[in-house]
Amino acid sequence: MQHISIDTIKTWERFYRANFINCLSGFKSVNLIGSINTAGQPNLAVFSSVVHLGSDPALIGYINRPLAAACHTINNIEETGIYTINHIHPSFVAKAHQSSAKYPKEVNEFEAVNLDAEFIHAIKAPFVRESTIKYALELSEIIPIKQNNTFLVIGSVTDVFIDTNLIGEDGFISIEEAESITCLGVDAYYTTEKFARFGYARVVKP
Amino acid sequence: MQHISIDTIKTWERFYRANFINCLSGFKSVNLIGSINTAGQPNLAVFSSVVHLGSDPALIGYINRPLAAACHTINNIEETGIYTINHIHPSFVAKAHQSSAKYPKEVNEFEAVNLDAEFIHAIKAPFVRESTIKYALELSEIIPIKQNNTFLVIGSVTDVFIDTNLIGEDGFISIEEAESITCLGVDAYYTTEKFARFGYARVVKP
Repeated sequence: MQHISIDTIKTWERFYRANFINCLSGFKSVNLIGSINTAGQPNLAVFSSVVHLGSDPALIGYINRPLAAACHTINNIEETGIYTINHIHPSFVAKAHQSSAKYPKEVNEFEAVNLDAEFIHAIKAPFVRESTIKYALELSEIIPIKQNNTFLVIGSVTDVFIDTNLIGEDGFISIEEAESITCLGVDAYYTTEKFARFGYARVVKP
Repeated sequence: MQHISIDTIKTWERFYRANFINCLSGFKSVNLIGSINTAGQPNLAVFSSVVHLGSDPALIGYINRPLAAACHTINNIEETGIYTINHIHPSFVAKAHQSSAKYPKEVNEFEAVNLDAEFIHAIKAPFVRESTIKYALELSEIIPIKQNNTFLVIGSVTDVFIDTNLIGEDGFISIEEAESITCLGVDAYYTTEKFARFGYARVVKP
């Protein structure tokens, strides 16, 4: 096992360093976030930073890149207060990955990457029709992270769309049965296989 | 596909709801965080909320539960400013999961779950000897999330310990070759298999 100090890492070429640091934190959720601006222009982008914050209330966060990175998702969420998170399956992972390209604001990424925008009930933000686990959120708060000009975007779940056959007796969702995937680094995608499930851990008295 | 509204979810039994909402955000990183207080008492706890924040500077965050949950990790990090993040492999996943039990403050979880605390160089916080990818961080900021009394703990990477054979030509770390795992919900663990890797996505001109 070798020791690599941050002083060494800082000298590395930019993309090499990004690949390395992005892998260090481990496997990541990977989802498509659907949004729309008040003029009705839909937006779709892939995010690998969706993080569970709490289940009561049901809060989910994600990290949005700096505004200078021209990410329209956060602008739309600020405008409308509504967005969707959609699981990704291998059948459309290439399209999902392509949504990370820096399309101009006037481009509808659903059309650009050839995924189908689906509007359900009165929910204003678009879902990904091809996704079999998806949910809508209402913006709760955007917290700036001053260290690198990113943002923690916090939303509360309002509506879930799912095949209820995927939900176990205890509420656990076997998302691998829906072929939901995980990712690593900036561009690698993985299928998964369950090998262990434990109960709630309790202190064992000797 | 069925529609489940938040009003329905709110009526669910607490553990059922926790399982369901915890699975919704997708597969998660799973890591052991090692810390120590100023009296020299080590602490170890499993976290499924480690999230990449940026690679330049190299920033990694995690969500810490409310202080009322008696999680000593955040107290130690505040005291010493130093902590470690350690990947988990199947050979010790049961021990890692057991570290989520609510041990009293005076218990050293390394001893309680039978993992080996390793001190490397002058780094004050303990590593997990059994872990083959691990790194130390310096606390940058603790941001309170007022919606549910949790905290986003932001650290900057200072030292990485890894078998450099795992690092690809472009900096990508094949953490699955080190048998690092992913998790889902509150208690399920998965191995992974890479099925796609793409380049940097660029806008394609028609």
